[in-house]
Amino acid sequence: MHLQRLKEELERDIARIAEFKPVVHHITNYVAMNDSANITIAIGASPIMSFAHGEIDELVSIASSLLINIGTLDEYIIQAVMLAVKSAKSKGVPVLLDPVGSGATKLRTSTALSVAEEGVDVIKGNQGEILSLLRKEGVVRGVDSKVTAEAADVKEVARKFGLVVVATGKEDLISDGRSVYVMRNGTEMLGRITASGCMLGSVIASFMAVQKDFLLASLEGLACYNVAGELAAEKSSGTASFRSNLIDEISKITAEKVIERLNLERVV
Amino acid sequence: MHLQRLKEELERDIARIAEFKPVVHHITNYVAMNDSANITIAIGASPIMSFAHGEIDELVSIASSLLINIGTLDEYIIQAVMLAVKSAKSKGVPVLLDPVGSGATKLRTSTALSVAEEGVDVIKGNQGEILSLLRKEGVVRGVDSKVTAEAADVKEVARKFGLVVVATGKEDLISDGRSVYVMRNGTEMLGRITASGCMLGSVIASFMAVQKDFLLASLEGLACYNVAGELAAEKSSGTASFRSNLIDEISKITAEKVIERLNLERVV
Amino acid sequence: MHLQRLKEELERDIARIAEFKPVVHHITNYVAMNDSANITIAIGASPIMSFAHGEIDELVSIASSLLINIGTLDEYIIQAVMLAVKSAKSKGVPVLLDPVGSGATKLRTSTALSVAEEGVDVIKGNQGEILSLLRKEGVVRGVDSKVTAEAADVKEVARKFGLVVVATGKEDLISDGRSVYVMRNGTEMLGRITASGCMLGSVIASFMAVQKDFLLASLEGLACYNVAGELAAEKSSGTASFRSNLIDEISKITAEKVIERLNLERVV
Repeated sequence: MHLQRLKEELERDIARIAEFKPVVHHITNYVAMNDSANITIAIGASPIMSFAHGEIDELVSIASSLLINIGTLDEYIIQAVMLAVKSAKSKGVPVLLDPVGSGATKLRTSTALSVAEEGVDVIKGNQGEILSLLRKEGVVRGVDSKVTAEAADVKEVARKFGLVVVATGKEDLISDGRSVYVMRNGTEMLGRITASGCMLGSVIASFMAVQKDFLLASLEGLACYNVAGELAAEKSSGTASFRSNLIDEISKITAEKVIERLNLERVV
Repeated sequence: MHLQRLKEELERDIARIAEFKPVVHHITNYVAMNDSANITIAIGASPIMSFAHGEIDELVSIASSLLINIGTLDEYIIQAVMLAVKSAKSKGVPVLLDPVGSGATKLRTSTALSVAEEGVDVIKGNQGEILSLLRKEGVVRGVDSKVTAEAADVKEVARKFGLVVVATGKEDLISDGRSVYVMRNGTEMLGRITASGCMLGSVIASFMAVQKDFLLASLEGLACYNVAGELAAEKSSGTASFRSNLIDEISKITAEKVIERLNLERVV
Repeated sequence: MHLQRLKEELERDIARIAEFKPVVHHITNYVAMNDSANITIAIGASPIMSFAHGEIDELVSIASSLLINIGTLDEYIIQAVMLAVKSAKSKGVPVLLDPVGSGATKLRTSTALSVAEEGVDVIKGNQGEILSLLRKEGVVRGVDSKVTAEAADVKEVARKFGLVVVATGKEDLISDGRSVYVMRNGTEMLGRITASGCMLGSVIASFMAVQKDFLLASLEGLACYNVAGELAAEKSSGTASFRSNLIDEISKITAEKVIERLNLERVV
């Protein structure tokens, strides 16, 4: 993807989000809810958070994309997740899965696999979580990843489930099962706040609401998030001010700022 | 209401909250809990958040007001809401209802109506949510409102349920079923953070804990919140710093600051 | 404890947390989850938040300490708490209990006592909550404390349950059942944000993950938190910026900063 094309698409998609304020329905974890809602509004979209079984179908109907994040689960939420994904598939609403902690516990791995097999459009996780979906040696420690994935693994996950994979790490890998991109942006500060990956999911899901090329939507969301992180880190005096600055920067992001710093390479 | 009287009442009620630190019991949504707790403390009151059936009655007993917010529901929470409202009515504890998303789903509309009919003292919502309680054409999109209400509608809701209505929008409408006020304060930044309406509910409920004229309490809370928003917007570099500045400004609010900027008009 | 020894231990333990990034498993309340996760990362540890029954045992297995906070309860969470504590005891994982609101409702008091009797290593609460565990006149108002405890009471609780007690208040009391320390640090701003006590629990639990002398771990965590609070208060323009600055300061805390301000006295 040429940077010039990416810049034009990004300009257009940021503007579309601002214009249509698409509803992004979230079933996400309790820790991230507030941050994810705030960053979704910051990028210009309109978040809903609900797992009440009795209203999922109605809410998915008015949503332009659905985000599933398995960071905190119980039986009720797992049922809500499956209801929401089925509803989204039947309505053609794009779905992003964030398999938080997949590989760390059987419950999370099996829930992530069930959702992935139901048919989602993008999976975004750290590299350990992504590898766990291959049932390879993905050693997830808690909900953080020690593992680094190879381009071939990420491509394999994308191919296995027939979707786009965003595997975050020191370098981020993005694949649609054919090509693989490496993005070398962001800041280590993103690892020093909670819900960092969850907020990235919200930003990508916001782009999926207006951009049906999900590889492009994923690159757009990831690029905005990483560059906002870089800009935020430069003015932060600790981890909490970084969190606040990150959301501030997302609320002011432009295609120009992003492309100026973007380090994206196609490796496969 | 003359501004001079409002100023004196507000001065007294801010001081009363600071002196008595009234307990405001919240049954609210997961997204807003932290923000609502923080803004309740910032205005000087003492928040409790709990929906455990086994302790609701005890907690309502020590509360000076009760806030019900239906932003995230499940069966357990709906039962908790009904238990809490019945308990509050039997004890004379004033109740504020925030019917988040009423009109967007059947579950929310019917829950909001059930609570309203149980007998609450103030309903605060955006104008679409308020209209949905008339079962009119309130078209709520997600949990945000596209609809603008007329003074007559707001008065009708207040009259129908026999309570005070605060209907937020570009201009805020407040009615006790007889008179209707318009407040032209606040900032568009309040629409760019999550839990903005929820935090307003917490501030009004804090005033209801010390001021039994609920029209006055509603005007006081809304005026403080809007003016704090204006002050915060002037010093914010994005949406997250606005959220932080908003709570900071509430923690330093005075009747003088509020009245200096207040634009309040009685229209009915 | 001589300040020189405390300084050396603290230097070592801050470095150990940074090196090992120990997993601190939290079962905590919805209000505090995000703040507790952020402050745990800020001090250098790795938080997990989950109460899903089906994964508690696996998560406790990879945890270096367990924090139980009863700030928001329901039947499912109470069961999760008991499962987690039993699992931790059987695996030798140290446990901190934060008995939020114990004394305010029967449910909280009985839950706190059940957990304490199961065998935990540190109990941290405000002085009213701590007194409630003696079934004395601990008058807890809401989840804040009006009561001040005496050194003898705190020692009695420590002795009764055979653990370390941290009883926060205007002056903080710490006892292992033999000695009692008073710490005169912190700032009244810590009482003006929500989840303040909960975050302190997370910081102490982070030290418990690397320091098996739990009296020392408690003093270390409390000292870091109080001094970070003092540093934060000096640069804050309201309660929300204080919250942000507090976490920032924890992310930059050093033994030197702490010892320079520490006011610790052994009174028994």
